[in-house]
Amino acid sequence: MRIARFSINNTPRYAFVQKDANDGKDYLIELDGYPLNGQQVQPTGQRYALDADGVRLLAPVIPSKIYGMAFNYRDHAPKTAQMGSSHMHVFLKPSTSVIGPDDPIICPSSSKEVEFEPELVVVMGRVAKNVSEADAMDYVLGFTCGNDLTLRDCQRDDLTWALAKGFDTSCPLGPWIETDFSYADARISCTRNGQELADAGGITADFIHSIPEQIAFISSFATLLPGDAIMTGAPHKSAQLHPFDEAVVHIEGIGDLRNILVSE
Amino acid sequence: MRIARFSINNTPRYAFVQKDANDGKDYLIELDGYPLNGQQVQPTGQRYALDADGVRLLAPVIPSKIYGMAFNYRDHAPKTAQMGSSHMHVFLKPSTSVIGPDDPIICPSSSKEVEFEPELVVVMGRVAKNVSEADAMDYVLGFTCGNDLTLRDCQRDDLTWALAKGFDTSCPLGPWIETDFSYADARISCTRNGQELADAGGITADFIHSIPEQIAFISSFATLLPGDAIMTGAPHKSAQLHPFDEAVVHIEGIGDLRNILVSE
Repeated sequence: MRIARFSINNTPRYAFVQKDANDGKDYLIELDGYPLNGQQVQPTGQRYALDADGVRLLAPVIPSKIYGMAFNYRDHAPKTAQMGSSHMHVFLKPSTSVIGPDDPIICPSSSKEVEFEPELVVVMGRVAKNVSEADAMDYVLGFTCGNDLTLRDCQRDDLTWALAKGFDTSCPLGPWIETDFSYADARISCTRNGQELADAGGITADFIHSIPEQIAFISSFATLLPGDAIMTGAPHKSAQLHPFDEAVVHIEGIGDLRNILVSE
Repeated sequence: MRIARFSINNTPRYAFVQKDANDGKDYLIELDGYPLNGQQVQPTGQRYALDADGVRLLAPVIPSKIYGMAFNYRDHAPKTAQMGSSHMHVFLKPSTSVIGPDDPIICPSSSKEVEFEPELVVVMGRVAKNVSEADAMDYVLGFTCGNDLTLRDCQRDDLTWALAKGFDTSCPLGPWIETDFSYADARISCTRNGQELADAGGITADFIHSIPEQIAFISSFATLLPGDAIMTGAPHKSAQLHPFDEAVVHIEGIGDLRNILVSE
């Protein structure tokens, strides 16, 4: 099932996304309530075409916090991590970094070097603390696409990456949360201005640390709340963005997340 | 004015803290509403002694995010920072790390080396983005005491400190927010099991980066929301805590923040 958040005439709502058997188009089936933490939700009876006037997809969730995995693919990791170092390197992005599909990525005036990284994002569905690897997936609601924007020049002077990876608009999420998704060998790719970047994609089979390992490790320190997100790492090389470049993250089985870079 | 958050029979409420002229004791003047973002709030007419049955002080705010300043006092900074490096090093603590006065600090089972750092904490009162140093203090609601707990052993393998400084209970805040406070030369000290640690305290006059600089710098990357907090840095040396040790952060003009360490 696909869970989307959208605005209709500037009011945010949740919806299921369903294909109409007659016209083959995707529709938003508006919901009453909050479908991300196991609460029962009911359709309101309203339905909107994705391209209807006044309808706009939003980030499917505003997590209270986002953890990102650094160096989690064999190809993108420094030699030490590739050689089987057991340490998981995690960073934080704040809720204020989140934007949705088609929202502009705004480069702060202090940076001239923005890079983007297409990532599979886990969205939690239940409160998770000290969860075992065996049980970890029971706490997951679903998956979405994410773009881990980084100010590469600022990062060099930013010991903990808190600002270089946490600036406003640095965390596009969307287009929706897919709850029926096989993450084991998901294929991730991205395009810049329509051109596929062959060396920026990858496949989650190349994870150094699996998703259950990530959840178990993080939750041994911090409580993951419903809606909290884990960006599972960048498959390969980061790609640079210049003003007015369009970045699209594509994950087979989820969809496309498209954003354009602008300067502040 | 002092703004406290407290629970009465397990229901959280806000209050002003006022001294009664007759008995000289502090009382919680219960409020209707949320006094942290400029909204008008009214007393409900209820008043509680701080030590009344069923009354417990809570963290005065659960920030959506907490920024911490690394190496912000001349004595505690590495030589490079002391020599006038202009870089401000900032880290993030998540909302799930916050606890209140007298709540236990819970050391995760993977750590054997917990240190505490007494810090002056700024609480924002207005949405702040791209704020100038000259205007920065207009966006501040007030100040509270904070304790920046760090798992020093885990930090060595934690590139961004996201878990070593962001574990659950790593951010005690309290006892209340003081809105009338002169931060320019505030004196910060701490005790462990009642013994003052002479080399762990300090005075904010020794800041490398002033509070307006901190707000201007952070807000040039990320929006600070009402209630968001900045831990302004540890004055001097960190002090180690062992299970059942009591840590008290004391800031003249604000009050005491007391917590005890326990093992998970």
